Amino acid sequence: MNRRMVLNTIGRIATTEAALLLLPFVVSLLFGEREAWAFAVTAFVALFVGFLLVYLSKPDTKVIYAKEGFAIVAFAWLLMSAIGALPFYFSKSIPSYVDAFFETVSGFTTTGASILTDVEVLPKGMLFWRSFTHWVGGMGVLVFVMALIPNVADRSMNIMRAEMPGPVVGKLLPRARDTAKVLYIIYIFMTLLQIILLVAGGMPLFDGVVYSFGTAGTGGFGTKGDSVAGYTAYQQWVITVFMLLFSVNFNLYYLILIKKFKAAFKSTELWFFAGLVGVCIIAITTNTYNFYSDFSEAIRHSSFQVASIVSTTGYSTVDFNTWPEFSKALLLMLMLIGGCAGSTAGGLKVSRVVILLKSICREFKKLLHPRSVKTLNMESKRLDENTLNGVNSYFAMYLIVFVVIYILISLEPFDMQTNFTAVLACFNNVGPGLGAVGPAANFSGYSDFAKLLLSVAMLLGRLEIFPLIIGLNPMLWRRR
Amino acid sequence: MNRRMVLNTIGRIATTEAALLLLPFVVSLLFGEREAWAFAVTAFVALFVGFLLVYLSKPDTKVIYAKEGFAIVAFAWLLMSAIGALPFYFSKSIPSYVDAFFETVSGFTTTGASILTDVEVLPKGMLFWRSFTHWVGGMGVLVFVMALIPNVADRSMNIMRAEMPGPVVGKLLPRARDTAKVLYIIYIFMTLLQIILLVAGGMPLFDGVVYSFGTAGTGGFGTKGDSVAGYTAYQQWVITVFMLLFSVNFNLYYLILIKKFKAAFKSTELWFFAGLVGVCIIAITTNTYNFYSDFSEAIRHSSFQVASIVSTTGYSTVDFNTWPEFSKALLLMLMLIGGCAGSTAGGLKVSRVVILLKSICREFKKLLHPRSVKTLNMESKRLDENTLNGVNSYFAMYLIVFVVIYILISLEPFDMQTNFTAVLACFNNVGPGLGAVGPAANFSGYSDFAKLLLSVAMLLGRLEIFPLIIGLNPMLWRRR
Repeated sequence: MNRRMVLNTIGRIATTEAALLLLPFVVSLLFGEREAWAFAVTAFVALFVGFLLVYLSKPDTKVIYAKEGFAIVAFAWLLMSAIGALPFYFSKSIPSYVDAFFETVSGFTTTGASILTDVEVLPKGMLFWRSFTHWVGGMGVLVFVMALIPNVADRSMNIMRAEMPGPVVGKLLPRARDTAKVLYIIYIFMTLLQIILLVAGGMPLFDGVVYSFGTAGTGGFGTKGDSVAGYTAYQQWVITVFMLLFSVNFNLYYLILIKKFKAAFKSTELWFFAGLVGVCIIAITTNTYNFYSDFSEAIRHSSFQVASIVSTTGYSTVDFNTWPEFSKALLLMLMLIGGCAGSTAGGLKVSRVVILLKSICREFKKLLHPRSVKTLNMESKRLDENTLNGVNSYFAMYLIVFVVIYILISLEPFDMQTNFTAVLACFNNVGPGLGAVGPAANFSGYSDFAKLLLSVAMLLGRLEIFPLIIGLNPMLWRRR
Repeated sequence: MNRRMVLNTIGRIATTEAALLLLPFVVSLLFGEREAWAFAVTAFVALFVGFLLVYLSKPDTKVIYAKEGFAIVAFAWLLMSAIGALPFYFSKSIPSYVDAFFETVSGFTTTGASILTDVEVLPKGMLFWRSFTHWVGGMGVLVFVMALIPNVADRSMNIMRAEMPGPVVGKLLPRARDTAKVLYIIYIFMTLLQIILLVAGGMPLFDGVVYSFGTAGTGGFGTKGDSVAGYTAYQQWVITVFMLLFSVNFNLYYLILIKKFKAAFKSTELWFFAGLVGVCIIAITTNTYNFYSDFSEAIRHSSFQVASIVSTTGYSTVDFNTWPEFSKALLLMLMLIGGCAGSTAGGLKVSRVVILLKSICREFKKLLHPRSVKTLNMESKRLDENTLNGVNSYFAMYLIVFVVIYILISLEPFDMQTNFTAVLACFNNVGPGLGAVGPAANFSGYSDFAKLLLSVAMLLGRLEIFPLIIGLNPMLWRRR
């Protein structure tokens, strides 16, 4: 393996994080908070680590193969989280480092699970940083680095493939760097649009920015203890719409941008997603109807929660833990499925589910007509067996990882519902689960062991399992 | 489709059931129970329905293709259960027909889930019939018919394939009928051996027979309200061993029978299964150690419960619902995996899990070396892509069916743990779940809708989804 190139790239990412830390530093200063120093010190630490890595490992060749891509992504995410946790720890906003690490991993992976019992006492700078990690993690830090720094890698598609969610990475433009740029332009534009719409509806600018970051990354961190419950119906609807928009494949927006409208809306994944969301909103509105005073309230809350869960954001306007089991079961299903590939959402991804459904249909046909040969198509392209095997293996791996983590989490003193949904919510980067980790509660009751385990679950979910496991495999580093 | 042949075969199965009903009839008479008439009347009903079907549909050709196989299996199992429920209903042992149907489906599918709040008040004949359905359903009714009746079908492998569990049906002998015979001979011999060992240990003959039927079919019905808790340590160990023996691929016994010892024990599935059972016993013994007075008691209970759950039998010596969450999580995992293919056990089947693990390993290798081509082997044979796709599709279908049934069951007034494990236990043909459907409880609290839904889940689990769905598809009958 090209170790030097891996370390060099990780170094660059650390320096990028130093730059990112300036933003919360400025916010902290603007609000006149004395915790600003924590960001400054952390930025120096990041800069130091970064330069050290870059300085010590000058690569002979810039070639990045698949394994280098995995190693870079795996270690970059771990390092970023380890450094990103420092401001919370230094400022004593979160006195335990494990807690701070959990919170930061939860931020970068856009999970939104928190160990804080009261977010509202946190300084503004910390609240900003928490939700800024969502925004950065949503589209991918390495994708960001690729968009910014020229020639960071000659074959950077391998990084992109390792960091971007979904079975097929949409290569919008021939060069990975251009694709990364286009994605970030769309991302920034949509985030700004949401901030404007929220502020226009009377939300304070700071809250507007924080909630828009949380929505864009489909994360879920906010500024209030009751999440989005305290905001107006208009603001809740804006967030609902944007949570859904950010969980749609970004190819759609690119195609709209280049005015290929027909191609943009001719997507099986998109329509399946729309149908799924529609059916669940209707079912949950009906099921929870008598909890609310009128239809508009019922449909607002059910739409919000459906959008929040399917996009794996995790905001809430009501405590859905008190809803009937049927609605909760639907939400659990949505957690599992998640958003579309090529979006900032987590979960299995809609396209994978569609591919699985198609391969089931093929199996039915094959059982009836054993000698028939049928190829599968997806989005008007033939699905090659490699992609199909990849989806199938991912699915199997997904369930195995889930079961293993769930068994280990069962060592904690919580009931099955809490443990099960805690793993489900972390692994799918949703945030809140049910029971003792429901939307009105938090993860502070878990032991340090469980918090670290759930941090791993969040990273596995965000990086789609394989890159993390391969990248951290010591075998990779030993061999030459 | 060859409708006449389908109806004709189903008719023969109904007459076979009439013959099977004579056994509980005799048992009932021996115990001088007046409920014997219920068996006699049901036998007449079965005979009448059977002859009617056979008489009305004389097939022009005896050819059975895949679709005929599915239709026969699907309708045969439904009819058998519908008729098999009548003795309970006629004798008012189970006053509600839906309850009786649930109990009978639970019997034939070897699930062992019960709606009875007190089994001990049931007449002996009814207890015998309940557990005899396990024995018949375990190896498969159609396999039984094939072994008995000559020339029931020219291509009966298609029936066997639809009724036998596992990704690959072990064709022990060139002719399906001979394979069926060998399987039943092994099955009868092992059942007799267990009866002898139990009775030798002081168990009353009637109990010995009932519990051996329940063990052989990996069902779980017994004669006592506390399942196996009241029996001696020796008897519990005998049942433990036999539950494991009956969840091993019957190929093993055939190979031993023909003295191919080396081939018999050279099975990946077998060793994976043994390892899984061993690890779980050690983990649960450690985890539940302080619940019991000494080591021998702790290991006995943990071995019993592990064997009972992994074999999907569902007997219990303790109320494992009171165990720590960690042990319960391990049991849930074992429910999911189940026994080996080609056994009477339910669940996903160990061989499928092994194949999934192998395909995951291949995926790892492919991600690292994208251009490498690797074939998969299983039990020293190359796994063709068809089998692999079949396993993957089954796995995906399994999860989708599970989620759908779980969502529908969530309409019932129970908590998540109860609903979730009720579906898990029925779908995997285990029997007891956790919470309100734990080993010390039963399914009587569910509505008729839920009982029918869970009956469908049991049938889907036993027949491995596809045959039931394809066989009941009206499209199949319309087309010619």
